[in-house]
Amino acid sequence: MAWWRIRHPLFLFDYTTVKYVVTQNRKVGLLYRIFQLTVMAYLIGWVFIEKKQYQAKDDTVESSVLTKFKGVASVNTTDFKIWGPEDYVYPKQGEDFLFIITNFIETPNQELGNCSEKSSIPDANCTKDEDCIKEEAVRAGNGIKTGLCLKTAGGSDGICEIKGWCPTEKHGKPDKATVLRQAENFTLYIRNFIRFSKFNFSKSNVKLNNSDDYLYLKSCLYDQIVHPYCPIFRLGDIVNKTGRNFQESAIMGGSFGIMIDWSCDLDKEDSHCNPHYSFISLGSNTTGFNFRIAEYSNDAEGKKQRTLYKVFGIHLQIIVFGTARKFNIINTIINIASVLTLMTAGSFLCDIILLYMMKKSTFYRDSKFERIAKNDKESPAKKMPEGPKRKFSL
Amino acid sequence: MAWWRIRHPLFLFDYTTVKYVVTQNRKVGLLYRIFQLTVMAYLIGWVFIEKKQYQAKDDTVESSVLTKFKGVASVNTTDFKIWGPEDYVYPKQGEDFLFIITNFIETPNQELGNCSEKSSIPDANCTKDEDCIKEEAVRAGNGIKTGLCLKTAGGSDGICEIKGWCPTEKHGKPDKATVLRQAENFTLYIRNFIRFSKFNFSKSNVKLNNSDDYLYLKSCLYDQIVHPYCPIFRLGDIVNKTGRNFQESAIMGGSFGIMIDWSCDLDKEDSHCNPHYSFISLGSNTTGFNFRIAEYSNDAEGKKQRTLYKVFGIHLQIIVFGTARKFNIINTIINIASVLTLMTAGSFLCDIILLYMMKKSTFYRDSKFERIAKNDKESPAKKMPEGPKRKFSL
Amino acid sequence: MAWWRIRHPLFLFDYTTVKYVVTQNRKVGLLYRIFQLTVMAYLIGWVFIEKKQYQAKDDTVESSVLTKFKGVASVNTTDFKIWGPEDYVYPKQGEDFLFIITNFIETPNQELGNCSEKSSIPDANCTKDEDCIKEEAVRAGNGIKTGLCLKTAGGSDGICEIKGWCPTEKHGKPDKATVLRQAENFTLYIRNFIRFSKFNFSKSNVKLNNSDDYLYLKSCLYDQIVHPYCPIFRLGDIVNKTGRNFQESAIMGGSFGIMIDWSCDLDKEDSHCNPHYSFISLGSNTTGFNFRIAEYSNDAEGKKQRTLYKVFGIHLQIIVFGTARKFNIINTIINIASVLTLMTAGSFLCDIILLYMMKKSTFYRDSKFERIAKNDKESPAKKMPEGPKRKFSL
Repeated sequence: MAWWRIRHPLFLFDYTTVKYVVTQNRKVGLLYRIFQLTVMAYLIGWVFIEKKQYQAKDDTVESSVLTKFKGVASVNTTDFKIWGPEDYVYPKQGEDFLFIITNFIETPNQELGNCSEKSSIPDANCTKDEDCIKEEAVRAGNGIKTGLCLKTAGGSDGICEIKGWCPTEKHGKPDKATVLRQAENFTLYIRNFIRFSKFNFSKSNVKLNNSDDYLYLKSCLYDQIVHPYCPIFRLGDIVNKTGRNFQESAIMGGSFGIMIDWSCDLDKEDSHCNPHYSFISLGSNTTGFNFRIAEYSNDAEGKKQRTLYKVFGIHLQIIVFGTARKFNIINTIINIASVLTLMTAGSFLCDIILLYMMKKSTFYRDSKFERIAKNDKESPAKKMPEGPKRKFSL
Repeated sequence: MAWWRIRHPLFLFDYTTVKYVVTQNRKVGLLYRIFQLTVMAYLIGWVFIEKKQYQAKDDTVESSVLTKFKGVASVNTTDFKIWGPEDYVYPKQGEDFLFIITNFIETPNQELGNCSEKSSIPDANCTKDEDCIKEEAVRAGNGIKTGLCLKTAGGSDGICEIKGWCPTEKHGKPDKATVLRQAENFTLYIRNFIRFSKFNFSKSNVKLNNSDDYLYLKSCLYDQIVHPYCPIFRLGDIVNKTGRNFQESAIMGGSFGIMIDWSCDLDKEDSHCNPHYSFISLGSNTTGFNFRIAEYSNDAEGKKQRTLYKVFGIHLQIIVFGTARKFNIINTIINIASVLTLMTAGSFLCDIILLYMMKKSTFYRDSKFERIAKNDKESPAKKMPEGPKRKFSL
Repeated sequence: MAWWRIRHPLFLFDYTTVKYVVTQNRKVGLLYRIFQLTVMAYLIGWVFIEKKQYQAKDDTVESSVLTKFKGVASVNTTDFKIWGPEDYVYPKQGEDFLFIITNFIETPNQELGNCSEKSSIPDANCTKDEDCIKEEAVRAGNGIKTGLCLKTAGGSDGICEIKGWCPTEKHGKPDKATVLRQAENFTLYIRNFIRFSKFNFSKSNVKLNNSDDYLYLKSCLYDQIVHPYCPIFRLGDIVNKTGRNFQESAIMGGSFGIMIDWSCDLDKEDSHCNPHYSFISLGSNTTGFNFRIAEYSNDAEGKKQRTLYKVFGIHLQIIVFGTARKFNIINTIINIASVLTLMTAGSFLCDIILLYMMKKSTFYRDSKFERIAKNDKESPAKKMPEGPKRKFSL
């Protein structure tokens, strides 16, 4: 390569260029041309057009998500109720993590006292009092062991007595009857603001430039084909789009993701940079999701009591990701350069063939490699016509 | 290029070097030198000094944010109150998502019963009972339809009756009178711990090495110039710095981002790696932010009742991002190599000029390209003085 | 380099190859071979085997985290209680941000009224009434100034009177006596679903294919050696693994990170892509963590009162990060190419030595550089046997 050649100042501006040997070997020549074309096609077709490697990319998107649920459902708790978002959504403030109660097991009027632990908890099983260490909490249980082992009538093994909220939570799986039927029609509004700090580019998924936009938001409902950019989603649709059945998921609960993908080519104008919504199930069919809430109150005599709800429901996680791309000179050069370097591999290959697989190989080798005998003094002169008054240069 | 040349073992240590033709063409020589300098300047100036491409970078920062609000405000609800952080901040536990109540619409003493839905809700409008399907929830509404259409006196169209919390929420926009005046002076303390796992580097935005640091934290308030590293922010300042007016935003609410940018050159020492705070509005001027909270209680006769608050306020999102850079040999080589390859493009250009645009081009071409005639036998010999006993090599 | 040579169509398939000069200088030859081997070793050993630069990587992992705490503790508040997750975990819904109450300062029976501000608050200190501006909130305080400065008996300076919840919160540090002793044995279950969108690869840290998996989950407890993939963690272990003492941290609270690292080589099969759990302290030993909760109620005469809890506890942040790698042709080429280019630097070095540091340098220079005198007409002919009827080519 020519880039590093230095000369002593006098000949700084002599131009030095590589010497080539031209062979009229059509076979190798053709082969080499084909190779050149292949590499060029790869560079232009794949690297540039397909993979857009001439662009720099930022795949760390800064994101802010606001969410809001709407809709009401009738709930048959001990005191029959109507639930709005203020009741069935956790947390209330509308983050990117959402839990919508769709079912529950209610255990009313628990009071502090002693009773037997749930039999389903391994740590609470016992055969004698010694198995229930006093003051020790039951692992994954509901109370502190009192030291007694409550035997079942005539049975040899029993369950530890605990100090805690009694009676303990009801057994068994959640009941289809308590499901919030109307939950399927709840609507979720998502406001997502994103920023690619590397390119100092920001955008929101909600367009609110004029009153028409407001009207649109009041009425629209997300649909992949008809309303791909409407940020309002029906809960039932979200679940069903993941291939799960809503009414089933509503019983035991489930975990689902709303993915917002921002793939933006910033060499085009902003209007081409839009969110793409997709939906996935964040767990196997078998896994539900639940947690517990307690409502405390005082009974007639002012004794503290509580109602415990084990709530099952839909966990929604709004997952925002994306990539912004913009032309970048460094990336362009790196990719061109590396592909060009590839070419040398080609000439290497062709040389091998030329110098070892052709019947005139010997002759070609002599031409390509000019040997200098160790003690040969004149040979260089032979090829340097200007004789003695010649000048040297590197 | 020289890197791949192989020989048969005997001559493994012969040194083979490219042969050059030296022309004394000053024009092309000068041109080439200029090109060389340009490329060098680009490599050193832009790629290395400006873009620091010799460093590997990690732009996925792991972050943990803790926040804490301080300050109280007087609130004129039905029972006049003083609100502290335990009342006006959601969620309580201090995440990177914060909502500070600055205004509200209170609807006291709601009880379960039947009443007419809010007239502003499209789905609730009706002209006859048939329009109000029994047991159906009003979309984006407050209750379950009872099947009755309540006509306005003498009017032809009316509003569906619903079963829900009655009376329904008060109409209209939030009132300036209810705004928490003192909210502007609330202070937010942010503790941000970050980690660049790729370089196994961690740092916090809060420095607590000695008692002085504690005293500083007790008294300081963030200011871009005076206290750029003080992690305590005045709510009013945050909003105003985004170009919005706090007192206006306080009425309808708004969404704002506190961006913490960590740009760390890990080739320098840690003390150079500091957070840079900036503030942006995460929505247009017109969009507010609100959600609803219900406070349940029992009235004199023990009948369940609730007070519904539609709360408006400032949503703060703490957005942490950053890039860590550190010297990396692979990146360095890739960048140098690609730029060097560029040079070849230069010699290509110069050759074109030399071989086709100079008046002595023909002569230069003959010198650069040594042609071998198809059936020429002696020619190689001519240039190989050691005659027959010559050795071959690739 | 050979890649850019063009000819006029007639000789499109002539093969042109670089001309070399072969010197029998063993020293330089050996030197060059050594250099070649070094570079090759670097390319294969470091770049490919060690750094796997032939793979493209995605280091922005999309993640969804669900958490659930289990365990109970006895708490000695004014009305002695048993606390379950529904009481001591914030927020309830199980996000990646968790706060577990381990201690608290209780201030019971606060009522709205006038009293003196806490003396520890700088802004509340005063010497005369004028220091306490009426209607102004105390910065970082508990109420609104009434305009009075309450002097301590005989003292010259005093504390502003405030309107707020009185009496104000108890002074001082949290007490070891109130710590939730059983907290150390609370267990945390983490469900983490991750996705590398670039490679469209998803996985969960919880395996639930068959009933055995369920049984395993019911009984296992994370242990680096025995159960590295069990997603259930003992709170005490988490804290202790970070090098902090749990019982100490429980008093003032602390902030800890559970880091889940997904490093996946997608060229291998999925079973090799597993989470790696590690634990760090997100703050210095001295910093605790706390926030306040208020429980409102009505006293006998129906006057609103509240119990204020300043809760201290363990903040857990689940931090998910990772990198997925997969073979990519572009990366491979870029890295090979750049290293090959390196070789030229080697031949440069060797040429310098050969042409300037050998005693026969002059002779080598003449061989490598074929000078063309400005006005020399015959010289090219000398080396072009086919004389006049020669053809030109570039």
